[in-house]
Amino acid sequence: MNNRETVAFVGTGVMGNSMAGHLLRAGYHVNVYTRTKEKAENLISSGAKWCSTPAEAVADAKYTITIVGYPKDVEEVYFGKDGILENAKQGSFVIDMTTSTPSLAKKIYAAAKEKGIYSLDAPVSGGDVGAKEARLTIMVGGDKDAYKTCLPLFERMGKNIVLQGEAGSGQHTKMCNQIAIATNMIGVCESLAYAKSSGLDPVKVLETITTGAANSFSLSKLAPRILAGDFEPGFYVKHFIKDMGIALAEAEAMGLKLPGLSLAIDMYEELANKGEENSGTQALYKLWEM
Amino acid sequence: MNNRETVAFVGTGVMGNSMAGHLLRAGYHVNVYTRTKEKAENLISSGAKWCSTPAEAVADAKYTITIVGYPKDVEEVYFGKDGILENAKQGSFVIDMTTSTPSLAKKIYAAAKEKGIYSLDAPVSGGDVGAKEARLTIMVGGDKDAYKTCLPLFERMGKNIVLQGEAGSGQHTKMCNQIAIATNMIGVCESLAYAKSSGLDPVKVLETITTGAANSFSLSKLAPRILAGDFEPGFYVKHFIKDMGIALAEAEAMGLKLPGLSLAIDMYEELANKGEENSGTQALYKLWEM
Repeated sequence: MNNRETVAFVGTGVMGNSMAGHLLRAGYHVNVYTRTKEKAENLISSGAKWCSTPAEAVADAKYTITIVGYPKDVEEVYFGKDGILENAKQGSFVIDMTTSTPSLAKKIYAAAKEKGIYSLDAPVSGGDVGAKEARLTIMVGGDKDAYKTCLPLFERMGKNIVLQGEAGSGQHTKMCNQIAIATNMIGVCESLAYAKSSGLDPVKVLETITTGAANSFSLSKLAPRILAGDFEPGFYVKHFIKDMGIALAEAEAMGLKLPGLSLAIDMYEELANKGEENSGTQALYKLWEM
Repeated sequence: MNNRETVAFVGTGVMGNSMAGHLLRAGYHVNVYTRTKEKAENLISSGAKWCSTPAEAVADAKYTITIVGYPKDVEEVYFGKDGILENAKQGSFVIDMTTSTPSLAKKIYAAAKEKGIYSLDAPVSGGDVGAKEARLTIMVGGDKDAYKTCLPLFERMGKNIVLQGEAGSGQHTKMCNQIAIATNMIGVCESLAYAKSSGLDPVKVLETITTGAANSFSLSKLAPRILAGDFEPGFYVKHFIKDMGIALAEAEAMGLKLPGLSLAIDMYEELANKGEENSGTQALYKLWEM
């Protein structure tokens, strides 16, 4: 691997910042563009090159990685003025790691292909800690050859990296992940609410039920935070609502009914409307305390 | 410990049969009563004494363990004709290990106390395999002294044994367990249904999402059974509906709203109405295939 290759990195929020840092430390040239320059200062002082537009960032890059907020942001950095697809080099690779819509991933793939650019969708899970420790799960959609070429980059950022299928499959897999989490969190919160209401000691209850069939990541990792009154974001309520909205729209387009997911969206929207959009997803529990 | 003590064992279904077997092998005298004598034949031929009524079983027993089907069965063996409470020895211990209502556990406790009998509620989780391997989780409610005296029996049947609080607390803890499982199973099934509908390979998807925040016992242990078309009962749909019904009634009595649990009951009742009451809980997935 030639680590002197250039990577354009677009979006250096909580996740992107750690991920770009791993690439820098691995010896890649990193061009950064992000909406708020301050969020890239640490990378710039570590040797990344600041670029004032996506166009400038991608001009000499072999790889472009994007991880921005919402599908509309993805749309803009790829198709907007000074955007990626108009300016990326022929033969280069563009990788959107934002959790976004499968249809947009397919649209980018098709538009890129027309220009001789390779496109992958590669959303992640594992949160800020996974990003920091380069232990992200990376769910990839696109062509196998492009996947193989980009694998060394993924391996700098994650541990569990799987090519799921054609363009859009990475995003669809991420939706499967979010769907499983959504209703599970309802059950975790309801279980704790029941424990408290019935006069049990929720700590003892958790000690018991996390050892068996009720166990889950959320029960063993997030329920203790709830009991400690810690609602800080590992993952924001507002981003979870975005993800669930994408999943529900996709499901509806496939004629698939997901009543658990629908209930989860309703409950999280109620929570956001009560001012909790910047809390962590475990704040769902507050619905029983409000 | 004096293992020549006598245990009356009432109810030798899938769970009770294994549990009584462990006590027999540990050297206890075991008196068995169960509705269908054939279900106790293996125990009788291993040395258990057959009794034709609960009254006969408990007459000389220091401990009585019950694990029957529904709360009405518990009611009957404790309070009915030839029942346990009228016939158990003063100073003996009665332990209901059925998943039943917290209010019935309290009623048994109070009635037992009047007669100088000690009562514990001690429902289990871990299923047929846990019962067979003596690895059950046992959730106990009642007095500390009675718990301590009965602990050696529990240790023959389970691994994770916790006194949760006063009478009824074992049952309440079991409800916390079932509530967490209920909505989680919806999420697992919806995630698989989405994976299939969107053209993904569900096996690859599971490989990926079981490593992160979406993981749960149901996702890693039951989703693969669903994909293999294996809907055999580890835990019966009909029993799960019973448990969730108890939890919902208790929650309503406490003024607690549990929309996830309500949705789960509706979905499982729909499933049972379609003839799946004797399938395993993972058969919920069939709602997307029917």
